[in-house]
Amino acid sequence: MAKIVTLGEIMLRLSPKGNDRFVQAEQFRIIPGGGEANVAVSVANYGHDAYFVSKLPKHEIGQIAVNALRRYGVNTQYIARGGDRVGLYYAETGAAMRPSKVIYDRAHSSIAEADASDFDFDAIMEGADWFHWSGITPAISDKAAGITKLACEAAKRHGVTVSVDLNYRKKLWTSEKAISVMRSLMQYVDVCIGNEEDAHMCLGFKPDADVEGGKTDAAGYYNIFKGMMKEFGFKYVVSTLRESFSASHNGWKALIYDGNDFYESKRYDIEPIIDRVGGGDSFSGGLIHGLLTKKTQGEALEFAVAASALKHTIPGDFNQVSVEEVESLAGGNTNGRVQR
Amino acid sequence: MAKIVTLGEIMLRLSPKGNDRFVQAEQFRIIPGGGEANVAVSVANYGHDAYFVSKLPKHEIGQIAVNALRRYGVNTQYIARGGDRVGLYYAETGAAMRPSKVIYDRAHSSIAEADASDFDFDAIMEGADWFHWSGITPAISDKAAGITKLACEAAKRHGVTVSVDLNYRKKLWTSEKAISVMRSLMQYVDVCIGNEEDAHMCLGFKPDADVEGGKTDAAGYYNIFKGMMKEFGFKYVVSTLRESFSASHNGWKALIYDGNDFYESKRYDIEPIIDRVGGGDSFSGGLIHGLLTKKTQGEALEFAVAASALKHTIPGDFNQVSVEEVESLAGGNTNGRVQR
Amino acid sequence: MAKIVTLGEIMLRLSPKGNDRFVQAEQFRIIPGGGEANVAVSVANYGHDAYFVSKLPKHEIGQIAVNALRRYGVNTQYIARGGDRVGLYYAETGAAMRPSKVIYDRAHSSIAEADASDFDFDAIMEGADWFHWSGITPAISDKAAGITKLACEAAKRHGVTVSVDLNYRKKLWTSEKAISVMRSLMQYVDVCIGNEEDAHMCLGFKPDADVEGGKTDAAGYYNIFKGMMKEFGFKYVVSTLRESFSASHNGWKALIYDGNDFYESKRYDIEPIIDRVGGGDSFSGGLIHGLLTKKTQGEALEFAVAASALKHTIPGDFNQVSVEEVESLAGGNTNGRVQR
Amino acid sequence: MAKIVTLGEIMLRLSPKGNDRFVQAEQFRIIPGGGEANVAVSVANYGHDAYFVSKLPKHEIGQIAVNALRRYGVNTQYIARGGDRVGLYYAETGAAMRPSKVIYDRAHSSIAEADASDFDFDAIMEGADWFHWSGITPAISDKAAGITKLACEAAKRHGVTVSVDLNYRKKLWTSEKAISVMRSLMQYVDVCIGNEEDAHMCLGFKPDADVEGGKTDAAGYYNIFKGMMKEFGFKYVVSTLRESFSASHNGWKALIYDGNDFYESKRYDIEPIIDRVGGGDSFSGGLIHGLLTKKTQGEALEFAVAASALKHTIPGDFNQVSVEEVESLAGGNTNGRVQR
Amino acid sequence: MAKIVTLGEIMLRLSPKGNDRFVQAEQFRIIPGGGEANVAVSVANYGHDAYFVSKLPKHEIGQIAVNALRRYGVNTQYIARGGDRVGLYYAETGAAMRPSKVIYDRAHSSIAEADASDFDFDAIMEGADWFHWSGITPAISDKAAGITKLACEAAKRHGVTVSVDLNYRKKLWTSEKAISVMRSLMQYVDVCIGNEEDAHMCLGFKPDADVEGGKTDAAGYYNIFKGMMKEFGFKYVVSTLRESFSASHNGWKALIYDGNDFYESKRYDIEPIIDRVGGGDSFSGGLIHGLLTKKTQGEALEFAVAASALKHTIPGDFNQVSVEEVESLAGGNTNGRVQR
Amino acid sequence: MAKIVTLGEIMLRLSPKGNDRFVQAEQFRIIPGGGEANVAVSVANYGHDAYFVSKLPKHEIGQIAVNALRRYGVNTQYIARGGDRVGLYYAETGAAMRPSKVIYDRAHSSIAEADASDFDFDAIMEGADWFHWSGITPAISDKAAGITKLACEAAKRHGVTVSVDLNYRKKLWTSEKAISVMRSLMQYVDVCIGNEEDAHMCLGFKPDADVEGGKTDAAGYYNIFKGMMKEFGFKYVVSTLRESFSASHNGWKALIYDGNDFYESKRYDIEPIIDRVGGGDSFSGGLIHGLLTKKTQGEALEFAVAASALKHTIPGDFNQVSVEEVESLAGGNTNGRVQR
Repeated sequence: MAKIVTLGEIMLRLSPKGNDRFVQAEQFRIIPGGGEANVAVSVANYGHDAYFVSKLPKHEIGQIAVNALRRYGVNTQYIARGGDRVGLYYAETGAAMRPSKVIYDRAHSSIAEADASDFDFDAIMEGADWFHWSGITPAISDKAAGITKLACEAAKRHGVTVSVDLNYRKKLWTSEKAISVMRSLMQYVDVCIGNEEDAHMCLGFKPDADVEGGKTDAAGYYNIFKGMMKEFGFKYVVSTLRESFSASHNGWKALIYDGNDFYESKRYDIEPIIDRVGGGDSFSGGLIHGLLTKKTQGEALEFAVAASALKHTIPGDFNQVSVEEVESLAGGNTNGRVQR
Repeated sequence: MAKIVTLGEIMLRLSPKGNDRFVQAEQFRIIPGGGEANVAVSVANYGHDAYFVSKLPKHEIGQIAVNALRRYGVNTQYIARGGDRVGLYYAETGAAMRPSKVIYDRAHSSIAEADASDFDFDAIMEGADWFHWSGITPAISDKAAGITKLACEAAKRHGVTVSVDLNYRKKLWTSEKAISVMRSLMQYVDVCIGNEEDAHMCLGFKPDADVEGGKTDAAGYYNIFKGMMKEFGFKYVVSTLRESFSASHNGWKALIYDGNDFYESKRYDIEPIIDRVGGGDSFSGGLIHGLLTKKTQGEALEFAVAASALKHTIPGDFNQVSVEEVESLAGGNTNGRVQR
Repeated sequence: MAKIVTLGEIMLRLSPKGNDRFVQAEQFRIIPGGGEANVAVSVANYGHDAYFVSKLPKHEIGQIAVNALRRYGVNTQYIARGGDRVGLYYAETGAAMRPSKVIYDRAHSSIAEADASDFDFDAIMEGADWFHWSGITPAISDKAAGITKLACEAAKRHGVTVSVDLNYRKKLWTSEKAISVMRSLMQYVDVCIGNEEDAHMCLGFKPDADVEGGKTDAAGYYNIFKGMMKEFGFKYVVSTLRESFSASHNGWKALIYDGNDFYESKRYDIEPIIDRVGGGDSFSGGLIHGLLTKKTQGEALEFAVAASALKHTIPGDFNQVSVEEVESLAGGNTNGRVQR
Repeated sequence: MAKIVTLGEIMLRLSPKGNDRFVQAEQFRIIPGGGEANVAVSVANYGHDAYFVSKLPKHEIGQIAVNALRRYGVNTQYIARGGDRVGLYYAETGAAMRPSKVIYDRAHSSIAEADASDFDFDAIMEGADWFHWSGITPAISDKAAGITKLACEAAKRHGVTVSVDLNYRKKLWTSEKAISVMRSLMQYVDVCIGNEEDAHMCLGFKPDADVEGGKTDAAGYYNIFKGMMKEFGFKYVVSTLRESFSASHNGWKALIYDGNDFYESKRYDIEPIIDRVGGGDSFSGGLIHGLLTKKTQGEALEFAVAASALKHTIPGDFNQVSVEEVESLAGGNTNGRVQR
Repeated sequence: MAKIVTLGEIMLRLSPKGNDRFVQAEQFRIIPGGGEANVAVSVANYGHDAYFVSKLPKHEIGQIAVNALRRYGVNTQYIARGGDRVGLYYAETGAAMRPSKVIYDRAHSSIAEADASDFDFDAIMEGADWFHWSGITPAISDKAAGITKLACEAAKRHGVTVSVDLNYRKKLWTSEKAISVMRSLMQYVDVCIGNEEDAHMCLGFKPDADVEGGKTDAAGYYNIFKGMMKEFGFKYVVSTLRESFSASHNGWKALIYDGNDFYESKRYDIEPIIDRVGGGDSFSGGLIHGLLTKKTQGEALEFAVAASALKHTIPGDFNQVSVEEVESLAGGNTNGRVQR
Repeated sequence: MAKIVTLGEIMLRLSPKGNDRFVQAEQFRIIPGGGEANVAVSVANYGHDAYFVSKLPKHEIGQIAVNALRRYGVNTQYIARGGDRVGLYYAETGAAMRPSKVIYDRAHSSIAEADASDFDFDAIMEGADWFHWSGITPAISDKAAGITKLACEAAKRHGVTVSVDLNYRKKLWTSEKAISVMRSLMQYVDVCIGNEEDAHMCLGFKPDADVEGGKTDAAGYYNIFKGMMKEFGFKYVVSTLRESFSASHNGWKALIYDGNDFYESKRYDIEPIIDRVGGGDSFSGGLIHGLLTKKTQGEALEFAVAASALKHTIPGDFNQVSVEEVESLAGGNTNGRVQR
């Protein structure tokens, strides 16, 4: 079992029930989540020692977030306590041609206003095998970007493998700002995950394919992957390829490149989608487990894609699946018969 | 923004949760709705000054209905208060080959027993731009039919455009009764909405196509539309064309005719359907907005069809969508990607 | 109306809400169910005098199970009261490629530890028209197997038609044990229901087709059916044929053989599936009603298949449908239009 | 165990959750109830063969009411099916100085419009030991009053003991009307239950005490009881005596008179009150059981008062208590320690 | 009916269900509320034209707050739309000796960052009869304090009566800051509501009584009231007097002074308390109605105290009571009998 | 912060909502709990390193119990995984004179069938400061009694303080069996907690006072305490003294004796009681914290009593309170004012 560290923000997702719209809501389900926290829960479910690094208020709402991580086996000892707010996001669940909708209320959260002194990254990275972060973390605030850099540096000092999910979020920063910050952080990265939009907006690589339009010709990614590999010297470049037919029906596969070979995974037809939020994070979590435990990049990728396909059927941000369940699906068992 | 008046009944829909059958219910969700009230909420959501005219008891159950309208921005000042009952309907939600089922308990409601003296239609129609009613309103009772006629006359006196959704309901009246009442009211109507069954049962126009069987060849409607136009001098005749594959999967498009040209809309494939009740009303609401604000009957129709396609994904009778959301869908954005 | 007796266990199914996984659950819905109890409710809904024979504790949790049966019209006078436990099973509902999952907690239940003296089968079978049991009942315990035999013997003494649903459950017994018990009970059986896996594991008939792989070529069943008929002298051999595309989408049809002719039913495409548990039991219930009231084995089978197709759209183990609803579907009305 | 027949209306109570007011409601809990139905459930819980006689629609909402009775062991074979409506009442739960509030919507229910031909009272009373009705039943409609008379006559023909709970309801009839109907029915009554207001409004006996003001001096009832006994020749006259301190806190005791002796029960201090609706009915149910099984009127009354005290702690109209639980309380065990 | 304007913040209260603590929460009930919004709903329930002035984001979460006000009849036309956040507060409900707990998350809300240019107070105060604000509004931010001053000035220009609820909140500002701001605003105030702590912390009047300790000797307020009256020339000085026995049990009364006479209201013993939040606001709402419609300060005060006593029995911030209900309680009807 | 080890069973409590009786339940809330697990959560909330030792099945229902402990900060590394069942208990919540009721379904649970080889008690007790168990643990099964003995021996080897809560449960064993097992375990115990009934049934000390009758004269305990101290050489003997007025209202205090002095705590009047289950465990948890951190036995006892008084106001078995909250109450702050 590996020690896997993630750094980022855990928020509370507040959602109306079922497919209700926001204005119909009388109550919100409380769903903890956030890119890197989701990855931490994924790898904890696969049996790893997962550590989530962040900052949360001392009060009980902060404790709700801590407890959610502990409940699912994530070690919370490196979470600093202080500041005023737990970041929130409101999300309603779409269906058919109505998209799901997210409204963020995460500004001024404890992690956005955290200080470098809140974390001792040498202690955190001591003995770690893997460090994962996403493009959301440095986007939260300049302070958070600085903390991300400190974490990366410490990871490298301690020989920890570093993965990033580029994860461009236009509500948090502009492409210009993203490029200026993210490019300088790529030197620490071993495994780079991101689709064409991310590569374009975070790193400045111009896409060949019209991803928004649902085209997912894997070949369109070859040149970008090669370019990224050449410039930043990653061990792996990886991307998911989503076909969005509707809010309830997607195609899902992925592509990995190790500088020599491209491997394209099986494609899953996911219908109905129960909860698409966290789909990318479940892929990252599966990929980390795959690269840590599988013999080939292909096997690792198949694990990651199957894991994230399953995530689409599970309510909430966290991917609540076991290694056995993922491998059963990756092994071809897609018939959905009742397991008694 | 236009002043839009609708006249009819608002009921409380009582529904078991999820796909439970009636006999499994331990609680009912309270869902306010009714043909014309649904239209009022639709156009209020598009920014218009919507007025709903009806009668409701003075007690708190009547107030629940009033408050539901106010909550969603409908002006309730013309709702008379008195009488004994709020009309109810029980509805369970089907799935796949099991149809949704509705049991009405609306007899003796306040609006069914309302008197002409409850309403001052000259005051109501003063300054109004549009008046909408449906075939349900005169079907409720003879008194309600008389009130509908008074409203139509006042609308004409004040130069208000009048639309009707024929909406034949076999539980409320026979075709014979419907024809005798509805034909005499068509003189006041500018925009007539109704499918082939409605045209047949309410106006006596014999259908060419087997709508029940799911055939929706638009061409089959041409002759009926021409006949209706010829006889009643409507500005527009309009119909939705629903393909019912199952309770969870429908095709959806519409047809409009201005006496010169037929325009057939895009077709939407709706799967899964979250709530089909109110689908026709959301079409009427979209059409009113479209005809008030768009340059062509085609653009108006596309707005109406997109609006009602979205309605099928929203729980409850009311169509909780904005102009921007409808136009995004009408503009071709059907991929359902999460809106962050 | 016939007097129909069933013998077996009624359990409480405890399920998280919606598609939540077990580890996300904060509450469990209480869903009464069990193979033969489900059949009893089905035939009670078709208007028959249904009697369920079992044993339940005297305490209030036992009473919950009794009340659930009474609520849906099943006569509970032959349910012995005593023992310690109501059998439980935990079930989570899958979606798309994620299967539903069942965890049993039924050991040591009152019926598993019941004694022959708890039941007076001559009184129970007096005046009965039909006796149904499934392979689950003798699998519960050796005592339960003995009780099943006593019930079968009494049924034969009283000229009661006997049906069995082979229903092999690998968590309850091995194939060897099942074969030794079940083969000896086949002498009492008139109508034998079971798919290829059941025939193989319970009776030792080797399958021709790969049912797990979703192949459902009816012809593959011909030889097995003939063999079963030859060896045990059944009046009818029957099997459902399920195509498992995913947890949310199945194909569904059935096959019956009376020793002379094979009849293959219409095929239903079920999507989405609301609750697959109890699907087989609803088929048995429909078949009993069909064989009791229809003129041909084909009509009986069509009723059974339509009934069980509807079951897949209804939450819970019990099939809450009326004769009229089943016949409407069997008659071809699959469009799912709202019934007002 | 006795055969006990009750005649009346079962309604669905629709209630917001907790202490919410009507206008805050988003859902209604469905709570079956009605004076005589409540009595039927009470005596079924005490092990008697309880029959409830009424009329309910054939549709599924009618079935909800039938199933509620079956669930709790009441025989529903004498319930006629037909008519349009299940009577409803909306109820919100008060607290402290805010009273609970009930809004009736029961006009035009199936039982209100039932016909004498719907019931064969000779078959119903055959073998019966007790017949109970309340003043609500004849108040529903003139037809219902006629049916009540027929039932009473049949009861007398078959030697059945008859009890009445006078239960004056000012929303259903005037005192004048009540007196004209009820006085003529008293000739059939053996056991008359009713407080001072009931005696005044239904029978014309002028009260001595200010019940509304919470005065419950038992002595104030002596003269009325004697007068009622003298005029109508009852075997027992009985009244509960409620002290209303607030919606959450009541005192509760009762008085019985057999023509010779008055017996005043223990007094219970009930705080908090969970649900006061059905309190009187639970008293009637307890009294019937007490008079059928106890040696003295005092013991019978103590059983009835303890039963109804417990009812105030149970949500819903039905008194879900066993003989053992009532006798434990009547025996003095009021400490409320957890029963493990 | 009077036009009554209030200015302040409406927040969403997020609460676990029942008496759950925050860390047990899986969902939050959404409860709209805020001091002045609560007053607006109160007076709307009494039939007045209530206007709430504030600023809320344009997005759907802002719309939830707008809709909550519209639902209960408050005019929202003067609510500016813009900014980023709806203020939130988390609240758990205590019981017995466990206090309820509130965690604020209201910083950076739209109204806290609103600009004077968002409001046209001359238009708002035109035709108004009453303007109410509380000490919370200027405490939100310096900008909000400036806006409060502009509103007060406009009110005075238009001859509008001004009331303030001092409502000191130590989480929002220090006593020093409060005194410097609030004293300068008192020149606009006609009716000053506030207990001893408020008078001390907001205005610098040193208390005589130990309010925290539950002493509520009205005489202890006489000197403070006289001093306030003398310094600021109020028409009325008013205070509630709460006895806190536990989270579930309070005593409640109030005191008013018009410069000549002191009037002390009846005292209510409130047990159990359902929701104490908004108790003071319901008092202010009742007082405004009382002073507008009653002949004496005593009658006005009795209305206000009865209104707020009822509030303690109603879930949520808003006081959902009618004039009739308040007057029934004020008139002495405290027995809590079911209103049928 | 101390390392505190507890040994026992964690069950899932299944409860109907609110005050519903079992037979009214449609769903069960899942409430994790068990005597020693409750103590572990209590001391984790006070900041200690709490370890819970038990055995749970590997499946997801076992995981639910593990996750509940992790969520609230209890270390679960010493929980063995295996066996078949998670112990269950059904509980309904009483009110006023209706007691809460518990039905156990815990036989055959994993811990009841656990083997000594499942635990390495030397590793577990290494570095521990405190070991707590209750009389329930050895009562579960003979194997569990053996394991308890091994744990006690290891605790003594490692110099760990041992406390026991005698906690006699008549459903699990007879007094004879309890005495034979428990007396032999007292040699390992430093702190003995138990009321008179426990001392009588588990240790054979005959009570002087009628505890069941609600008499709680502390003096009645003096002789028993002295006798226990003399025979077993405890450091402290402690008992809670509960006055049961009703299911909703209790008096609560405690007594401690160190061989020299008796100290009787303050008395709390608890009304209303939200959840009484776990009240004794919260006392034990508070006492452990108190004895570890306070200077005198009196201060320790006051902490324990205040902690357990608060528990009665919190839903669920676990006492979700902080040191600050307990000390605020112990310090005299009982007024229940809202904490903002």
